[in-house]
Parts: sequence; C-alpha cells; structure tokens
Amino acid sequence: MLGYPDNSVARLINTDFATIKKDMTIAEAMEHLRQFHKDTEAANVIYVIDDEGRLIDDIPVRRFVLNDPNKKKIEEILDGYCDALNIKDKTETAIDKFKEYDRIVLPVVNDENILLGVITIDDVLDVAEQKDTEDIQKFGGMESLDYPYVKTPIFSLIKKRAGWLIILFLSEMLTTTAMGHFSDELSKAVVLAIFIPLVISSGGNSGSQAATLIIRALALKELTLQRWWYVMRRELFSGFVLGTILGAIGFIRILLWQKLHIFDYGTDWLLLSFTIFLSLIGIIMWGTLSGSMIPIILQKFKLDPATSSAPFVATLVDVTGLIIYFSIAAVLLKGTLLK
Amino acid sequence: MLGYPDNSVARLINTDFATIKKDMTIAEAMEHLRQFHKDTEAANVIYVIDDEGRLIDDIPVRRFVLNDPNKKKIEEILDGYCDALNIKDKTETAIDKFKEYDRIVLPVVNDENILLGVITIDDVLDVAEQKDTEDIQKFGGMESLDYPYVKTPIFSLIKKRAGWLIILFLSEMLTTTAMGHFSDELSKAVVLAIFIPLVISSGGNSGSQAATLIIRALALKELTLQRWWYVMRRELFSGFVLGTILGAIGFIRILLWQKLHIFDYGTDWLLLSFTIFLSLIGIIMWGTLSGSMIPIILQKFKLDPATSSAPFVATLVDVTGLIIYFSIAAVLLKGTLLK
Repeated sequence: MLGYPDNSVARLINTDFATIKKDMTIAEAMEHLRQFHKDTEAANVIYVIDDEGRLIDDIPVRRFVLNDPNKKKIEEILDGYCDALNIKDKTETAIDKFKEYDRIVLPVVNDENILLGVITIDDVLDVAEQKDTEDIQKFGGMESLDYPYVKTPIFSLIKKRAGWLIILFLSEMLTTTAMGHFSDELSKAVVLAIFIPLVISSGGNSGSQAATLIIRALALKELTLQRWWYVMRRELFSGFVLGTILGAIGFIRILLWQKLHIFDYGTDWLLLSFTIFLSLIGIIMWGTLSGSMIPIILQKFKLDPATSSAPFVATLVDVTGLIIYFSIAAVLLKGTLLK
Repeated sequence: MLGYPDNSVARLINTDFATIKKDMTIAEAMEHLRQFHKDTEAANVIYVIDDEGRLIDDIPVRRFVLNDPNKKKIEEILDGYCDALNIKDKTETAIDKFKEYDRIVLPVVNDENILLGVITIDDVLDVAEQKDTEDIQKFGGMESLDYPYVKTPIFSLIKKRAGWLIILFLSEMLTTTAMGHFSDELSKAVVLAIFIPLVISSGGNSGSQAATLIIRALALKELTLQRWWYVMRRELFSGFVLGTILGAIGFIRILLWQKLHIFDYGTDWLLLSFTIFLSLIGIIMWGTLSGSMIPIILQKFKLDPATSSAPFVATLVDVTGLIIYFSIAAVLLKGTLLK
C-alpha cells in the first residue's frame, strides 16, 4: 500500500474481510464463513467476488438470518447494488461517500474492480478529526503538527510555528514602511497614533470572523466557488453595518472623554472623531471583504483555503488599514490638525 | 425525548431496533427476527432484554451465522459484555465512547437499565463535525452559528458577529488609554509609534498559535488541566526562542535601513533597535504564555476553552504589549531619545 499517495484511502485499508462466490448455496456460504472467519467486525458484511477477485456485490451478514430460508443460492439474495471506493480516492472523498451512502463499511477496489480491502467508518472518523485539527492549526497561523501537541518535541513545535511567524513578521514590516511615509502627519498630530491599535485591530477581528465562516463553509462543501458574488455582497453589507456600530461607539467614546475632561484630544476633537468613525467603517468593510475573498481565491488556485489564517488576514488588514486611516485623516484634518 | 437537555444523546436516539429474549432457542430467535424485522441497518445488532425491558446483552447478527450450529439457546452465545450509553449522557461522551469501544452502534438505556433505543456512529460523525464547526467559529472570534453560513439570514449573521466585535473593540480601547499615558514619550519620539503595529501584532500572532494548539489538545483530550505547568514551561521556552528569532530580524531590519539610508531613525537608532529586540522577546513570551494559559483557565472554571479566540488573545496582548514596549523604551531610551 506504500506506493499510493499519502492522502489516499490506501492508508486506511483493512485487508481482513470475508468473501464468497455467487454460485455457492446459502448453506455452503455459511459453512465457508464458519470455517474461515472469526466472530469479528470484519464478518459484518460479506463480499461476493468472481474467480478473478472482481467485486460483484456485498451482503450484510444479517441477510443470511433474515432471508426466506427457501432461497437456495447466494445470487438469489443479492440486491445488485454495491458502493465502493477506489484505492486512489482521497481520504476526503471517503468521508463524503460514507456520509452520502450512510454506510459503516465500504469495500475498496482498484481500476480493474479487484477487491483489495475494506474501510470502516471509525477509521474515517479519525481522519475527519485529524483533518479538522490541521485546519484549526492552520487557521491559528502555523503549520499543522504531525503528532499531538503533547507528543511533538519542543524544537519541532518551534519549527512548525517559526515559519509562519517570520512570514507574518516580514509582512507586518510594511506597517513600519507605511507609517514611515506618514511620519510627517504623525509628528504634527501625535494624537493620531493613539488610535492606531484600536482602528487596525477592528479590521483584523472582522476579517478573522469572515475568514472562519468561509473556510469552514468551503470545507463542509456548504459553499461553492461559483457563489463568490453572493458572499461578497453579504460580507460588504455585514461589514458596513458592523463598521457603523463600532464607528458610532468610537465616536461616542471621544465625545464622552472630551466632554468629561478625561482626556484632551485638542481643539479639533470633533473632526478627529469623524476620522475615527469613517476609518472604522472603511477598515471593517475591507476586513470582511478580504477575510471572505482570500479563502475563495486560494481555493480557486487549488491552494488550501485554511492557509488564510486569522493572523494572516489581520496582518493584511493592518497594513492596508493604516493606509485607509491616514488617507481619511489627510482629507478630513487638512488645514486643521494637519496644517 | 424532548424532556432531556439539548446536548444529551436523547436527540440522536433511534427507536428502530431488534430485541429477543435469552431463553429463546437460536432457531426461535431467527424466526422472530424474520417475522418482525426488515433487512435494514437496525438488524445488524440484536439486543437481548428481560421481561421488564432491561438490557442484558447485545449480539451482532453475524454470531447467528458464525456460531456452532449445535448450540441451541441464545444464552449460550452471549458474551456477557455489553457497552451502553445512558440517555442523560452528553453527545461529547457518546463520541468518546464510540472511539473507545470501537463500535458502530451503541444501545441507550435509562438509570433503570431499560433499553430505550440505539445510536449509530454516522449520527455521531455529524455531531462531531458540528462540534468542530462551533469551535472553529468561536476561535474566529464570534458566536457559533445555528445553521450553515449560506442558510443564516443576514441580520442573524451580523448579530452573531456584533457581540464579540463590540466586546473586543471596548477592550482594545484600553490601548487608546495606555497610549494616552505615553503621549509624552510619543511626542518626544514619534519614531516609537512607527513600530507599534509590528511589535504588538507579533505578540498576537504567537498567542494565537499557542491558543490554537491548547484549545484543540483540550478538545481531543490529549491534554489535561493537571499538566498546566508542563504547558507553561514549553510555551515560555518556545516564546523565548521565537521572540529571539523575530527580535533579531527586527534588529537587522533597523540596522540595514539605517546603514543603506532607506530610512533615518535618528542618532539613537542603535538604542532603538535594542528596544525593538527586547520588546519582541518580552511580548512574544507574553503572547505564548497568555495564549496557552487562558484556555486552561477557562476550562478550569468550566467555561468553553474555545472562547479564547485568536482575536481575543490578540486584543489582550495588544494592550499589555504596548505597556511592555513603552516600559522597555522608557528604560533604554531615558536621557537619549526620551530626554
């Protein structure tokens, strides 16, 4: 089984299974089973094969018990319907087929329909769980682990985390470059700096929400790539509403702090609070848009959508969010705070 | 079944199952099954009950076929071993028991051991998947959805997201407060502001990685709360190594940009780059520490560890990260940049 790719069902195959021929009588078949098979899970479904080993049908063992005892031959109790997996199928396909066919065990054949083994649903349960673990770890902004956390050696753990952390760090350096460009504005209005973490993090948070929803919907096949326009409209609208809510809270905060003399934002505090209000709407809409579209674009290019992790989306939105913030500030505060 | 809590196995129970009495002969039992049961999945395992309906044992139907035909009575082919779920068990317990016992179907009894129904593994597969979806959505920083993304009405979608977004926004306002306190330092050294997004986001990213690992390990029961000290040591060490790597990259970046005249960080650029180096180590260690300990603390207090979402950890580390950054700057740059 080692010749097949890592993510094929070949890894899960179990070669302990029971076969009979269709020209046996039912009594012969039962005698054959008693002689060659133990009372284990493998004897729950019996496979009917031809002389070349090709799969003809499957019989749940209950059918021997429940059928009309007057029937004599195996071929009389076949239903002529048998779902099977191909040895080259991916494990994801196996999960889907188990759900679709509502089965507990499925036979595995090769391209010539030769029966090679069986796969049971509990192995698939483990694979589905492993797949979810990988998606979750990727979404946390790291390479997925090969072994459970407690069994992963410390330096292997660090290696799995360092790669993405360095990529994110190098990308986030663009915020330094962007802010370097705005250092003139910053030295004129230090008060602008005070709101930077608040404003850019909101974009990251709303983007992280959108990315989660889309990545999971794609993984469960609830959503197809063709519906990107539907997703985009929904997310832009959600972003607008969420941005308006947070923008209003931000506006009220500045108003209250100023009026209650908790902090002095200077004479142009009203213009400043409008800057925050509009920036939040713009940045949160940008966050929901990029958070939802990046997984779709990745899947379109046959890359894993789960790579669009929360930290990845947050980093992207940090860089662009700063540009949105300072651009809105440049327009609104020109001639006043930024004279 | 409506009297049981939402997360109990009562929701998954199937009342289509086959029962026999232990004093039947095997021939009588088979005749009984043929008469009262169709050829469906429900007939894969037969349950032996007493006159009051109490569960005595289960028999896989294959045992009728595979057993010595000389045995006459049902009680002769019982193995005296029968795993069951209690109707009050949580669905999570059911998932664990299916994995532990390696079974495809399990009977469900009440406190009096009366057989009420059965649960099959494919129903549990759906529940496990639903549970993972909830965890993933919570980790993305929102309430989990009740329906798939594409079936959730837009205002319900916004409502599920707004709550956490507002909580995170209000918490992140503490960054504004913190930076207000440091506005003196900021106006003296605007160059400090330029590095804020870079420095605090690194803490959020490393914290998000740690939180993912711990939340998933707790969900899969790979990790128990008793091992918090082991986790803390591992995460502090990982944070130190990762912080040193990123710190070194940050240090080199300032050095290169200064020497290549890409940007002028002023005469005290070397002290500034030491500030960035040390801050990154401190903030990333703080990130891995809080990211790993918050899920453990939440579970300790019987709260859902998945609530410690990537955005939640990032927000916490943003606030404390700023304090770490400005404190290190205050010490290192006192008398020079911050004179």
